[in-house]
Amino acid sequence: MGLQRKDLLSLEELSAEEILLILDTALSFKEVVQRPIKKVPALRGKTVVNLFFENSTRTRTSFELAAKRLSADVVNFTASASSLAKGETLLDTVRNIEAMNVHTIIMRHSCSGSVRLVAESIKASVVNAGDGTHEHPTQGLLDMFTIRECKGSLAGLTVTLVGDITHSRVARSNIHGLVKLGAKVRIVGPATLVPRSFTRLGVEVHTNLEEAIQDADVINILRIQLERQDGKYFPSSREYANLYGVNARRLKLAKPDVLIMHPGPMNRGIEISPRVADGPHSVILNQVTNGVAVRMALLYLLSGGGNGDENIN
Amino acid sequence: MGLQRKDLLSLEELSAEEILLILDTALSFKEVVQRPIKKVPALRGKTVVNLFFENSTRTRTSFELAAKRLSADVVNFTASASSLAKGETLLDTVRNIEAMNVHTIIMRHSCSGSVRLVAESIKASVVNAGDGTHEHPTQGLLDMFTIRECKGSLAGLTVTLVGDITHSRVARSNIHGLVKLGAKVRIVGPATLVPRSFTRLGVEVHTNLEEAIQDADVINILRIQLERQDGKYFPSSREYANLYGVNARRLKLAKPDVLIMHPGPMNRGIEISPRVADGPHSVILNQVTNGVAVRMALLYLLSGGGNGDENIN
Amino acid sequence: MGLQRKDLLSLEELSAEEILLILDTALSFKEVVQRPIKKVPALRGKTVVNLFFENSTRTRTSFELAAKRLSADVVNFTASASSLAKGETLLDTVRNIEAMNVHTIIMRHSCSGSVRLVAESIKASVVNAGDGTHEHPTQGLLDMFTIRECKGSLAGLTVTLVGDITHSRVARSNIHGLVKLGAKVRIVGPATLVPRSFTRLGVEVHTNLEEAIQDADVINILRIQLERQDGKYFPSSREYANLYGVNARRLKLAKPDVLIMHPGPMNRGIEISPRVADGPHSVILNQVTNGVAVRMALLYLLSGGGNGDENIN
Repeated sequence: MGLQRKDLLSLEELSAEEILLILDTALSFKEVVQRPIKKVPALRGKTVVNLFFENSTRTRTSFELAAKRLSADVVNFTASASSLAKGETLLDTVRNIEAMNVHTIIMRHSCSGSVRLVAESIKASVVNAGDGTHEHPTQGLLDMFTIRECKGSLAGLTVTLVGDITHSRVARSNIHGLVKLGAKVRIVGPATLVPRSFTRLGVEVHTNLEEAIQDADVINILRIQLERQDGKYFPSSREYANLYGVNARRLKLAKPDVLIMHPGPMNRGIEISPRVADGPHSVILNQVTNGVAVRMALLYLLSGGGNGDENIN
Repeated sequence: MGLQRKDLLSLEELSAEEILLILDTALSFKEVVQRPIKKVPALRGKTVVNLFFENSTRTRTSFELAAKRLSADVVNFTASASSLAKGETLLDTVRNIEAMNVHTIIMRHSCSGSVRLVAESIKASVVNAGDGTHEHPTQGLLDMFTIRECKGSLAGLTVTLVGDITHSRVARSNIHGLVKLGAKVRIVGPATLVPRSFTRLGVEVHTNLEEAIQDADVINILRIQLERQDGKYFPSSREYANLYGVNARRLKLAKPDVLIMHPGPMNRGIEISPRVADGPHSVILNQVTNGVAVRMALLYLLSGGGNGDENIN
Repeated sequence: MGLQRKDLLSLEELSAEEILLILDTALSFKEVVQRPIKKVPALRGKTVVNLFFENSTRTRTSFELAAKRLSADVVNFTASASSLAKGETLLDTVRNIEAMNVHTIIMRHSCSGSVRLVAESIKASVVNAGDGTHEHPTQGLLDMFTIRECKGSLAGLTVTLVGDITHSRVARSNIHGLVKLGAKVRIVGPATLVPRSFTRLGVEVHTNLEEAIQDADVINILRIQLERQDGKYFPSSREYANLYGVNARRLKLAKPDVLIMHPGPMNRGIEISPRVADGPHSVILNQVTNGVAVRMALLYLLSGGGNGDENIN
């Protein structure tokens, strides 16, 4: 059974079965990327375009490697150099790219909803690589893949998300995915950054870090975007570190086998202490490794893979 | 029979036979890019360099996809990051690139004639992807391919080019190509932007849009480069839209099966109304699709393809 | 016998045997890049990342072509767009890249020693593409390859390096390599830019250009980095040209079959006259051609090639 979808726009819209299909498929691709020759012909002769309107070398590179290891041709289309600077509309830009017989568009944009607008306007597959504060579904999937790899299953686990929940597309994708697969999700951070209304998504809302990580199986620490704050949401990064920084002392409150996650890039000494980042509980680099496998699985499934007649080898 | 040339610098210097050879070859490649696996081995092990001294994601991407679908290795060489910023001469930069055993250089530059200077200094093939206000021959070829695809032939058709003819390399390439293949060409725009002297190229010069599109088979609407104008050539973009914007009402003056073309990026509401851009006469996205096929044909022919012993499949 | 190293960080640390192994292997790859199909499968399914924290289109392109002609997947990771701008540490950036199952990282950075720091922190192979004023070992290797190609051997030759020795990583790599292979090395330039202390590296230190090129077999002319000088080390570029510019008249002092080299980009009319740059003694473009072959050899050897059971064809 394949994924009966043209696009991946959010985890909110996926069923638990669809999420599990992607995670199971990613397991096979994880095996592929650990071979000496990390390459399968699944997307040979197909074109994948990275259309990033916000800078993100890490995510762009992860998608680029995923597509190249599937043997696709990859083109990077950066916003600054593009026709948008010349007054072209977003839809005209995207329709132009599609007209070059492109198979999949990976898109990141600062406006929530922009990726859906594009997906509904073209026939090519569209993958949301982050839209505003809405969702970043492949990050959610790779986080879930990493937890499942370590813990066997997500059902019944307690996962605490720490930081700026309000502006985090990573948080939203994690919440939708984790709740669907039966995890218990807690969110915690300054009251200015952790909306009470998230209780309707099925999560527990906290403002005290120590309560929120009590007996947690997983602590997923979000990046504080210092470049976007300026005393608006909390007084200083020092104060943030004091109240919400995850350090070795606080870690003892969690389960003995707690996993420490972070989507990167890290502000060491602010939201996470170096000892925690580099310690035995950290699976932060595993997340990066798994990201490529999850994105390969997704590109494969969106192009019709998994419908029974292909062999990824 | 192949193309007995090292370079493509202009349509002015091509014979009608050479143009037809490229257009006919592009037909085969259009079939290739519509296959599930859009790839032929014609340029395997050869290197194509995109050397763009002016930003153009669209044209660069079209050439990049064309080269990759021919299985070439493609390197993007952007001007801002290059040695030119360090005082190196243009010819030294280009000779350096050639010395890396590069097969074809695709070059765009703001100086008219610069691409010819380069082509005459090196042994590698050079393709003009736009030089100043001189020519943009592959745009001319893809426009002609698109007209021919819809109308069967160019001979005897009336093609109207609308806009800033003075500064348009697209206009110059179209005029040279269309006149050679027997089309009747009209140019129209503000008197400040439509040189009377173009009559010697064999075109009709107009300043009244309605007269110029009367019974036209094709209207090719050029982009108004608002970023380069500033009240110098016409009072305002609103005034331009009133006098030279192609809208649904004016379209009725043309033939009932008129084709609407635009090289992009479009200023919707200025030189073209949204209804015309998205309407049934528009072949604007077909131009983009055909651009890749035409560029594949050209790269293939310049590398010696079509001389009888190869098979593009 | 292969190269028993994970990284190439400097020529200072290589033995004469290791240098000769790389130069001999490069000879085979020079033959490969002159074939119509310049491609061998040695690195198929492996990923090479270009991690350049300083702009250098030329060196980056040379490495990119070398890796692609070995059939590797290549990803360009530019510093400006990267997470470093977001406060991530260099080691976190590099560990993230490595976590994507990357095989080799080519790194350039403005800090001397930074590339070694990275190499010691990760398991992937690291190639120094220039670190501060320390070394640029592949430039040294390609210079030696070019001399050896013309002269047969390096032993006993007199090689004069002209220019800003103090700030030149090219000079340091050349000196270490040439001295190991038995060449006699002279350095010359303004006293402010030619440290006396270099005598302990086994070179002759000069401040008079004419004395320094007397009977030289090779003159390697370094680029004057005008953008970094400003009257600090010499009064003006005109004065520099008068005293240290290599021109046709001065060339007569060297051996009749002297080789003229320059790592590029050249300041014509300052450190080198156009007649010398384009004259019969110049092997400047050969250096560029050989650079790709030398880098192919290096990437091949670092990935375990040359241990007896592979065939580069």
